[in-house]
Amino acid sequence: MPGWPSQLRVWLLILAQVMVSGSWGGALRQAPCSIGSLLEAAKLLKLKAQLGPDEGKQKFVLETPKGTRAYSPRQMAVGEKVFDVVLSCFKRHGAEVIDTPVFELKETLTGKYGEDSKLIYDLKDQGGELLSLCYDLTVPFARYLAMNELTNIKRYHIAKVYRRDNPAVTRGQYRGFYPCDFDIAGQFDPMIPDAECLEIMCEILRSLQIGDFLVKVNDRRILDGMFAICGVPDSKFRSIYSSGNKLDKVSWEEVKNEMVGEKGLAPEVADHFGDYVQQHGGISLVEQLLQDPELSQNKQALEGLGDLKLLFEYLTLLGIADKISFDLSLARGLDYYTGVIYEAVLLQTPVKAGEEPLGVGSVAAGGRYDGLVGMFDPKGRKVPCVGLSIGVEQIFSIVEQRLEATEEKVRTTETQVLVASAQKKLLEERLKLVSELWNAGIKAELLYKKNPKLLNQLQYCEEAGIPLVAIIGEQELKDGVDVPREDLVEEIKRRTSQPLCIC
Amino acid sequence: MPGWPSQLRVWLLILAQVMVSGSWGGALRQAPCSIGSLLEAAKLLKLKAQLGPDEGKQKFVLETPKGTRAYSPRQMAVGEKVFDVVLSCFKRHGAEVIDTPVFELKETLTGKYGEDSKLIYDLKDQGGELLSLCYDLTVPFARYLAMNELTNIKRYHIAKVYRRDNPAVTRGQYRGFYPCDFDIAGQFDPMIPDAECLEIMCEILRSLQIGDFLVKVNDRRILDGMFAICGVPDSKFRSIYSSGNKLDKVSWEEVKNEMVGEKGLAPEVADHFGDYVQQHGGISLVEQLLQDPELSQNKQALEGLGDLKLLFEYLTLLGIADKISFDLSLARGLDYYTGVIYEAVLLQTPVKAGEEPLGVGSVAAGGRYDGLVGMFDPKGRKVPCVGLSIGVEQIFSIVEQRLEATEEKVRTTETQVLVASAQKKLLEERLKLVSELWNAGIKAELLYKKNPKLLNQLQYCEEAGIPLVAIIGEQELKDGVDVPREDLVEEIKRRTSQPLCIC
Repeated sequence: MPGWPSQLRVWLLILAQVMVSGSWGGALRQAPCSIGSLLEAAKLLKLKAQLGPDEGKQKFVLETPKGTRAYSPRQMAVGEKVFDVVLSCFKRHGAEVIDTPVFELKETLTGKYGEDSKLIYDLKDQGGELLSLCYDLTVPFARYLAMNELTNIKRYHIAKVYRRDNPAVTRGQYRGFYPCDFDIAGQFDPMIPDAECLEIMCEILRSLQIGDFLVKVNDRRILDGMFAICGVPDSKFRSIYSSGNKLDKVSWEEVKNEMVGEKGLAPEVADHFGDYVQQHGGISLVEQLLQDPELSQNKQALEGLGDLKLLFEYLTLLGIADKISFDLSLARGLDYYTGVIYEAVLLQTPVKAGEEPLGVGSVAAGGRYDGLVGMFDPKGRKVPCVGLSIGVEQIFSIVEQRLEATEEKVRTTETQVLVASAQKKLLEERLKLVSELWNAGIKAELLYKKNPKLLNQLQYCEEAGIPLVAIIGEQELKDGVDVPREDLVEEIKRRTSQPLCIC
Repeated sequence: MPGWPSQLRVWLLILAQVMVSGSWGGALRQAPCSIGSLLEAAKLLKLKAQLGPDEGKQKFVLETPKGTRAYSPRQMAVGEKVFDVVLSCFKRHGAEVIDTPVFELKETLTGKYGEDSKLIYDLKDQGGELLSLCYDLTVPFARYLAMNELTNIKRYHIAKVYRRDNPAVTRGQYRGFYPCDFDIAGQFDPMIPDAECLEIMCEILRSLQIGDFLVKVNDRRILDGMFAICGVPDSKFRSIYSSGNKLDKVSWEEVKNEMVGEKGLAPEVADHFGDYVQQHGGISLVEQLLQDPELSQNKQALEGLGDLKLLFEYLTLLGIADKISFDLSLARGLDYYTGVIYEAVLLQTPVKAGEEPLGVGSVAAGGRYDGLVGMFDPKGRKVPCVGLSIGVEQIFSIVEQRLEATEEKVRTTETQVLVASAQKKLLEERLKLVSELWNAGIKAELLYKKNPKLLNQLQYCEEAGIPLVAIIGEQELKDGVDVPREDLVEEIKRRTSQPLCIC
C-alpha cells in the first residue's frame, strides 16, 4: 500500500447492535466491540436520548406557503420506502415512465375539473403565455397523448401537483402533493386493463402492510342510469352524488335529510335512490341488479353491469375478488370519468392502543376516462384510458404514525462506514482511506475536522446509525477487528453485503 | 397446480438475441428458439425497422409552455440512468435528502439572485399569499435551514425549478429543469467539505463516461481582491465579471475590447486585470500568486489563496488534483457566493465523425455561500455552506446524442417475460399465470386481448425488448423450453437473475 505509514493500523468496529435500539433486520448480527470510550459514549448518548430525539430540530416551519410543507430527511426516508413499493409495482407491470412540466397552458386545464377548477393555481401574466400549475397528472397525460398522437401506452408518472383548497394537514392532506399515477391507454378488449389496475392497487396496498383494505367499485354508467330511473334531475346530479358519497360516514337517514332538506329532492325520489345506493356486495349483487326490472331496462346501466360482471370474473382469476366491493354509493367527483370507477379505503389503521385512529380516507383511486384524450385531439379521435392514482401523502401519514407508535428508528442516510482516527494528525490518512472506499463504491463518511475526538466520531455513528467504523491509529488500540489495510475494502463489503433494512 | 388443465404446457422462449439488434449486456446469451412463426415475425419486423423506429410517434409537442418539454419514455429511460449515477454518488457520501415545495413565498426569493431576479415566475394573486416558483434549490435550502434552526446537515435535493429566460433548447437548456444539488452546511475545518464537493463532481462525471472533463476553480475573495488591486470600480464588478467569464470562448483582445469599449473600463485597468485573469494552473500557480507583490497585500485575496492552497493539498490526497484547474477567469454570477467557486466543463464530446460537437458548456457547478442562511435567520446567525449542482439536462443531451450516434437500443420498460398463448380461449390461463408471476415479484405483461395472435405477441416482445416469452398452449408447439408449470417461476428467475443492461 504505497504511502501508508507502517506503524498505522485500521480497526473495524461493528457498532450496529450496541449503538442503535431500533431494528436493522438481520444484517450485522456480530457482537459489538467494547472499547472503553465506546461505553463512555454510550452513556452520554443514553442521557441524550432521554431528552428526546432531535430536540429542537423538528420545529414546524411556519413560513412555507399555506398548506405546503418541506419534507425532512426522516420524512423523505419514510417516503422513499413508500415510493419504492409503488415504483417497483408499476415496473413489475411493464409500465414506461413519462414526465411533463409542473405547469401547462391555462387553456389545457380549462373545463376538465368541473367545480374544482376554482382550485387551480394560475401563474401571473408576466408577458407571454397564460399558465397554470397542474391540478392532477391525468389531464397532462391526455394532452401528451393527443399531441404526440399516441394511441397506445402504459405509463406511470410521479410528480407534484397543486390545489388551492383548504387541506386537512393533520390527515395528510396538503396543497402540494405527489400523485403516483399508472394509466393504460389504448383500444383493448373490455375490462382486461381495468382488472390490471385493480390488481396493481391491491398489490401496492398489500406490500405496504398498512392494514386491511377494501376497494370499492362502481360504474359511472350505472350511476347515471340509477339517477335517470329515480328521476333525479340532471341539474342535481353532482350535488346528489356528493351526498350519496357520505354513506360510509353517516347513516342513510342523515343523507336523505340532506338530499331532501338542503338539496330539494322529492322525498319519494330520495327513497327510490336510497334503495339502490345503500347496496354493496360482490358479483352476486351485479347478477342480481342485472335482473332488476328497472336497471335492466336502462341501456347505460346494463352496459355498466355487464362490464362489472366480466371485471369480477377477471378479478377472481387474479385472486383479488375478495378485496373488491361493488358499492353503489361510490361516486368520484371528476368530470372526466366515463366507466368503471374505484377507490381504496383502509379498514383500520394500526395505532397504539387508546389512540384515536387516524382518519385518512381514501388511499388510492381511479377509473376509466374514454373521452378525455379526444378533448385535446384536433380531430376528436378518442383514446380509451383507464388508470389509478396512489395517494402517497395519506400513506406517509399512516406509516409515520406507525413508526412513532413503535418507536422504530429510521435511518436517513445509507452510510456503511465512518472513517475515523484515534489520534491527532491523521486527516491525511483519513482522506486517503475514505477516497479509496468511495472509489470501491462503499458508502463512507469522515468528520470534517482536522483532529476530531474519537468520542465525537463514535457519537456521530450512533446518531446516523452507521453500522461500521474504521479507526486509523497506532498500536495502542487493542480491541476491534485489526484489519490489514489491503483487505479493508473486501472486509467492509463482506460485512455490509446484506442490505441493511432501515425501517 | 390446482385448476391447471392437464393438456396445457408452457414453453419458455428466449428472445433477446434474435429479436433485438442492440446490446443488452452479457445476460441471456442462450441460443434463440426457432419456431416458424418467430421467423415470420422477424421478417416483418425487419421490414418495419427499415421504415425507421417509432415513425410518427416522436412528433414535437408544439403546445407545451414555451421552453419546457415533456420527457418521453425513451428520454426518461436515459434520464433514469443519469439520475442513478448522481443519486448513488450522493448516497455514497452519506447525504440525507429533503424536499421543499415548487413555490416559495415571493419575499423568500427576493434579493437573492441579483439581475436574474427578473427571470422568476410569479404566481397570480388569487387572494392569500404572493408566491413564486423556485429559481434554484439553494435559496429554499437556506430558508429551510434557518427556519428549522439547523446548523449542520449534509443533504441532497433533486427537484424541478423554473426560470423565465430564453433557453437554447438545442443545447439542452430549458425553462424548467432538474438541478441535482448536494450541499454541506455547518461550521467545519477549512476546505474539507469543499474538497468533498469537488470529489463528488469528479466521481459523477467519471461514472457517467461522457468524455474528459476539467473542473475550474476560483475564489470570490481572490476575484474581489483582484478587482480592488486593478482599480475596477465597485459598480462595474458584475459587468466586468461577465466579460471575463468569456475567456474560454474568445481571445483576450476581444474581451478587452468589450471591457474598454462597451463597459467603459480604462485601458490600463483592463490590461492590469488581463494580466491576472488570463492565468490558470495548479497548486504552483496558487503558490506563485501567494508571492505576488500586489495580491499578497490584499487581505481578502490572501485568505482565498491560502484556502486554495489547502484545498489543492486535499485534492491531491483524494487523487483528483489533475482534474482541477485554478482559473482566474472563472466568475459565477449569483450574488450569494462568498468563497471558493467551481464549474465543471467537458473537454470534448464523443460524437460521430464529421458531426458538429454539441456545445453544452458547464455540466456542474457550485461554491461556498456562507452568508445566505443568515439572510433568513431572525437573529442573523450564519451557517457556512458549500455545495454543488449537477446540470442533468445538459448531460441528458450528451447521452442522447451519443445513443443516437451509436444506434444503441434503449429499453423503456423492465418487463422480463410476456405471458402469451398459442391458441384461442386461453385468457383465463394467461391471467392466472401472469398473476402468479406478479406475486412472485417477476416483471410480467400480457396483451389486453381475449385472443391475441402469437405473431402480435412476439412482435410486442420485440418492440419492448422483452427477453422472455412464456407461451401457453397444447402439445403442438415443438420448440422452445417446455417448462413444467410448477417450475416456471424458478426457471424465469434463473434466466433473468443477471440484471439486464438496458443501455
